Order: sequence, then structure tokens, then C-alpha cells
Amino acid sequence: MCVASIEERVDHMDDLPGAIGTSASLVLRLGQAVFSVASLLFMCLDVEFVSYTPFCFLVTIMGLVVPWSLTLAFVDAFSVLVKRPPCRKGTLSIIVIGDWVLSFLSLAASCSTASIANLMLASGGTLCDPKLCSRYQLSSAMAFLSWFLSLASSLFNFWILPSL
Amino acid sequence: MCVASIEERVDHMDDLPGAIGTSASLVLRLGQAVFSVASLLFMCLDVEFVSYTPFCFLVTIMGLVVPWSLTLAFVDAFSVLVKRPPCRKGTLSIIVIGDWVLSFLSLAASCSTASIANLMLASGGTLCDPKLCSRYQLSSAMAFLSWFLSLASSLFNFWILPSL
Repeated sequence: MCVASIEERVDHMDDLPGAIGTSASLVLRLGQAVFSVASLLFMCLDVEFVSYTPFCFLVTIMGLVVPWSLTLAFVDAFSVLVKRPPCRKGTLSIIVIGDWVLSFLSLAASCSTASIANLMLASGGTLCDPKLCSRYQLSSAMAFLSWFLSLASSLFNFWILPSL
Repeated sequence: MCVASIEERVDHMDDLPGAIGTSASLVLRLGQAVFSVASLLFMCLDVEFVSYTPFCFLVTIMGLVVPWSLTLAFVDAFSVLVKRPPCRKGTLSIIVIGDWVLSFLSLAASCSTASIANLMLASGGTLCDPKLCSRYQLSSAMAFLSWFLSLASSLFNFWILPSL
């Protein structure tokens, strides 16, 4: 069944840029990886972040998003180059669920970090150095952008899931 | 087109409890409304919450979720009683998009509130009364439950959207 309708499915996937196996999806995945790495760098350049739970949460989640996005970027790159999208419904379901869970966790981590960083900044330097707080804010902004791309990926894949 | 395939669509919707027009959807909507009201009550029983942005954000979002969920609960109740689900694809798209936006905003508000409330509780009473902080935590927990139900609704509706 999978092999029989592969041309049809390739056509369908070409109609929906952003679904797995397309070059748009590759761009989305690379964007997620880049923003996650940026978020990790802004957060982890010193070790003071470990005293706050939301910051540790952000680091954990971004540490999960990076390998996940890179793996799927490789899958996309392979599909684009070899012109053969992966065709199992089960695989796509796992990818959609993984994207969903990671996107929700990214959003939660990003919002928690942003609110804590803002509160610390508003406290006027008693809770943290203003420079450090700005870096935490930047880290949360990067996590937010990573969430956005992750959400886009999961939406595109979820959209083609019932038609498989 | 809409009238012609209405029986078929009724069958399809009976197959998927949780999509709009079913009794499961009615239960989900009522649950959302109840948790949102609970979250609002825990947050708003005094006026100290206005000094923190995430708390105001939570109140705004929960204030949007309550009328939205109640309206859709009425639609569901009508559909269940009169046995005729609404059949326009456009309407369903608007409902799905609204659910999505509100569910993401609920999650963001809930996480921000929870992290701020925890930080305030950890500060040992210098930032707020411990009793008040616990109430903020409860409020955020209620908002989290409301998010969960809202997400379930949007998922069920999104799932039937491509088949309409």
C-alpha cells in the first residue's frame, strides 16, 4: 500500500511545503536547532542559572530540542536529495507527537523564563545583575522563536496525517 | 453540498467523541469554563494581583476563555438536543483557530503565573504573604487544567477538519 501510492503522495507533499520531506521543513528544522542553541548559549554562559527551576527547565528542554531537530533535519535533507519521502503513518505520528510535546514544553519553559527574568529585572539588581537578566530575557526570546518554528512543523505534519 | 452529506457527517462525528456537536465536546467546554472561573476566583479575590504583569495576563486570558467556552457549550448543547451538527467548514476553522490561540495563551499565562508564584513563595514572605502565594499557585493550576481541556477540544476539531 505504501509503495503503490508513493507518487501520489509525493505530489501531495509537494503541495504542502513544510510537511516532512520537503525543503521548507528542512529550513524549519534548521531554524529550530539554531534558535535552541542560541537560547542555550545565552542561558549557560555562566552557572548562575542553576539556582532557578525555570532556567534549569529551559536548559533541559532546549537540550532535547536540539538533537530532535537535527535528526529530523537529516531526515528532511535525505528526502530532499534522494526524492523519497518517508511513508509510514506510524513514523509520522511519532514525529507529530514528539513535535507537539516539545513545542508545548518549549512554550512553557520560555514563558516561565521570561516572567522570572522580568521580575528579577524589575527588582532593580537585588536578585541579579541587570546584564545577566537581559541575557536571560534574550534566552527566553530565542526559546520562544524555537517554539514558533516547532509549532509550524507540527501543524504541517498533523495536517497531512489524516490523508495518509 | 452541505445538506447532501449531512447524514454521513453525523455518522462521522459520532465516531469521534470530542469534536464539536457531541456530548463529549459539551463536557470538555463546561470543564474549561469551570476551571477558568475557578482560576479567576483564586486570582481575583483581592486586588494585589495587579502589580504583576503575568497575573494580569492570566486574568485577561481566563476572562476570554470563559465566554468562548460557554458560547461553544451552548452550540454543543443545541447540536446534541436537536441532533444536527453545524456543517460549515469555515465555522469549524474559526473555532479551531480560536481554540488554538486561547489554549496557547492559557498555557503561557499558567506557566508564567506558576513560576512567579513559586519564586515569591521561595522568597519566604518578603514578596507576598505565603497564603496569598498558595492561592496564586492554585489559580495557575486551574488555568493549566483549563488549557488541557482546551487543547483536547482543539485537537478533536482539528482532526475532523481535513475530512470536511
